[in-house]
Amino acid sequence: MTSVDDVSRPSRVAGPDEAISAEELQLAARNHGIPLEALRYDVTPAGLHYLLIHYDIPDVDPAGHALTVDGAVRLPLILGLDELRSHPRVTRQVTLECAGNGRALLHPRPVSQPWLVEAVGNAEWTGTPLAPLLREAGIAPEAVDVVFTGADHGVERGVEQDYQRALPVADALREEVLLAYEMNGAPLLPQHGAPLRLIVPGWYGMAHVKWLRGITVLTEEFDGYQNAVAYRLRRDADDPGEPVTRIEPRALVRPPGFPDFMTRTRVLRPGPCTVDGRAWSGHAPITSVEVTTDGGATWAAAIVDPPRGGDWSWRRWRYEWSPQPGRYVLGARATDASGRTQPVEQPWNRGGFANNLVQRVEVAVLAD
Amino acid sequence: MTSVDDVSRPSRVAGPDEAISAEELQLAARNHGIPLEALRYDVTPAGLHYLLIHYDIPDVDPAGHALTVDGAVRLPLILGLDELRSHPRVTRQVTLECAGNGRALLHPRPVSQPWLVEAVGNAEWTGTPLAPLLREAGIAPEAVDVVFTGADHGVERGVEQDYQRALPVADALREEVLLAYEMNGAPLLPQHGAPLRLIVPGWYGMAHVKWLRGITVLTEEFDGYQNAVAYRLRRDADDPGEPVTRIEPRALVRPPGFPDFMTRTRVLRPGPCTVDGRAWSGHAPITSVEVTTDGGATWAAAIVDPPRGGDWSWRRWRYEWSPQPGRYVLGARATDASGRTQPVEQPWNRGGFANNLVQRVEVAVLAD
Repeated sequence: MTSVDDVSRPSRVAGPDEAISAEELQLAARNHGIPLEALRYDVTPAGLHYLLIHYDIPDVDPAGHALTVDGAVRLPLILGLDELRSHPRVTRQVTLECAGNGRALLHPRPVSQPWLVEAVGNAEWTGTPLAPLLREAGIAPEAVDVVFTGADHGVERGVEQDYQRALPVADALREEVLLAYEMNGAPLLPQHGAPLRLIVPGWYGMAHVKWLRGITVLTEEFDGYQNAVAYRLRRDADDPGEPVTRIEPRALVRPPGFPDFMTRTRVLRPGPCTVDGRAWSGHAPITSVEVTTDGGATWAAAIVDPPRGGDWSWRRWRYEWSPQPGRYVLGARATDASGRTQPVEQPWNRGGFANNLVQRVEVAVLAD
Repeated sequence: MTSVDDVSRPSRVAGPDEAISAEELQLAARNHGIPLEALRYDVTPAGLHYLLIHYDIPDVDPAGHALTVDGAVRLPLILGLDELRSHPRVTRQVTLECAGNGRALLHPRPVSQPWLVEAVGNAEWTGTPLAPLLREAGIAPEAVDVVFTGADHGVERGVEQDYQRALPVADALREEVLLAYEMNGAPLLPQHGAPLRLIVPGWYGMAHVKWLRGITVLTEEFDGYQNAVAYRLRRDADDPGEPVTRIEPRALVRPPGFPDFMTRTRVLRPGPCTVDGRAWSGHAPITSVEVTTDGGATWAAAIVDPPRGGDWSWRRWRYEWSPQPGRYVLGARATDASGRTQPVEQPWNRGGFANNLVQRVEVAVLAD
C-alpha cells in the first residue's frame, strides 16, 4: 500500500566524495539565493531576496483569508486582513537569512537545500506588532510556546504536516515581532507568504512563518516536526541537539570587478578598488568587519557604515584595496557586540545549520 | 601574467558518471526557475519568472540611460527613456524560455547552467515597437543583421564582452518585437533588464537582450560570441552548427497534490483530480496536448483552453484523472500547427539547447 513513507527518506549526510545529487539540484532550481551583486542595494528588490519554500507556494485567496488566535487565551480571535490593517502599522527593515545558508560547503555535506552563501536578503516589512494582539487575546500566565501555522502543506521525513513553528512566549511577545502584509511597500508576493507572514527580527528564516493562518498558545513545549526534529543543532542522528534560533554574525563580500560566466571567478583591472559588502548578526549589533585578500592568512579592518536600516538590518562595510596583478581570495569576517564572530574552521552540525564560515571570492587582477 | 584566459575554460560535456559540479550548483543558486506550482498563474508574478544572467546584474541609472541606434542607418539616434515612453505604447503577453532549459537532464550533460525543466515564465511586457524606430533611423537596404548590446559585462570561454546578440534584419523588423520598459504593469526589475530590454516573441531567452543600451545595424553577418560561438546547435566541438532561434513546443505539468520536501515526489489522495499545466511553442500555435500517467507508455488527449494571452503566450491545458492508489509518472506532450512536437528521445546537442524532452513528475497516490 502506498503511504507517505514511500516518498520520504530519513535525513542523511553525503559520503566523503559524493557530489551534488539530482534532488539537491532540484531544490536549488526552485529556492534561489540573492545574486551577490545585489548586495549593492540597501533594500533587496523584489525577486532578488532569497527564498526557501519547504513545500509548494499555496494558493491563498486574500479576500477569504483569516488569522485565528486560539489555545491558552481568554478570548480567541479570528481576524481578517482588513481588521489587521486597521491595527497600528509599523515598517521595519529586517535581514533574513536561511538557517541552512552555507550547507553545501560543509564537509561532509548534510543533504538538503544546497546553499552556498547566498541565502540572505534585507527587506522592508510592514505590518502590525504581534504582542498587542496576544495581550488582547489574553494569553494565559502558564503559556510556554506560541505556535504559528502556515497554509503550506507537505511531507518531510515521512511526516505529513502544515508548516508549523513555535516561539517561546517571551520571544513571541518581543515588541519587534510583526504580522507583515507588505514587503518593500507593496503587498506581499505569493512566494514571500502572501497575504500574511510572521517576521521575527534577528532569527533565522524558519521562524518567519509564511502564509500565516493560525496562532495557538500552548502551556507546554511544542513538539512539532520543525521545532523538535528539523531545526536543531545536532552532532549526530542520536543527539537531541539544541534549537536553531538567532542568526550568527556574517559578512559577505560583494564580488568586485566582472565575472567569468562558468567559474564566477572575478576579473579586475589593476588600480584602486573599493571592496564592499554587508554584515549582520541576530544576536547583537555588528562592532567590526575585517577583510582578507589572501584566503584568511591576514586580516585588515574595514570601515563599517553607520546603521541606516535600524537595529535588525544589515550594515554596509567597505575597504580600499589597490592590488597588483595576480590571484587573490577575498573574504570578510564580522564580529558583534556579544563577542560572536565568524569561525575559520567550519561549525559542523548534522543539519548544516548556522554555518557562518568565512566566504571565499576568487579574484584575478589582470596584468596592465 | 594574469589574463582572462586564466579564469575561463573551454566548454565541455560531463563524463558519463559525473555528478553536478560545484560550479554548476553555483549557477543554479543564482539563476532560478519558476517553481512549478506557479504554472497556476496566467501571468507569472514578479520574482517567480525564470532568470538567466550571464554575468552580473549591472547597476544602470535610468535617469542617465540612453539607447543608441547606429551602424548602417541614414540617421543615427540617441533616445532617452522619456523619449521612448513618448512613442506608441504596446503591452504584450510573451512566454520566455531559456534555450538551455532541460540541459541538466541530458546524457551526457553539457556543463553550463543546469536547468531541469523550470526555465520559463509568462509576463506582460510593455514598451514600444522596434520596427518604426528602425524605419525612422533609415535602415540601409543592404542591412543583414541588427546587433543588440546590453550593459552587462563579463568573460565567457576566454572572451571578454558586453552581452551582444544579433537578429537577422527580417526578424528585427517583425512588428511584435518590443523595446520593453515595464513588466506586469511595473517598471522593469533590475534582474529583468531595467530600464530597457528587447522582447522577441517566440524566440528563446538569449535573444531578449536585457539592459539594452545599443542597436547597431550591420551589412554583414554578426560574428560576435553569443551568435557565432555560444548559442548554436552543434553535434560536437568541431561542428559549426545551426543558430538557436525559436522556442520548440513544450508542455509542463503543474505537479498535483503536495510534495515531499527532499524528493519533490507528489502525494495525492485517491479520487478525481484535475491535472493541468501550460503549453507553448515559438513556431506556431499549439494544436494539441497529450498527457501520460505511465511515463510515456500511453497517452490521452488533454483539453487545451482557448488562448487568453494572445499569440505569444502559453496556453492552459487540463486533463481529468481519477487514479487508484499506486505510483505514477506524469508528463505532457505539446504539438503545434507547424507539426513540431516533443520527442520521446532526448534531442542532444553539445550546448544542451532546445531540449524539449517530455517532463517526468513522480506521483504517489495514497491508499484510502
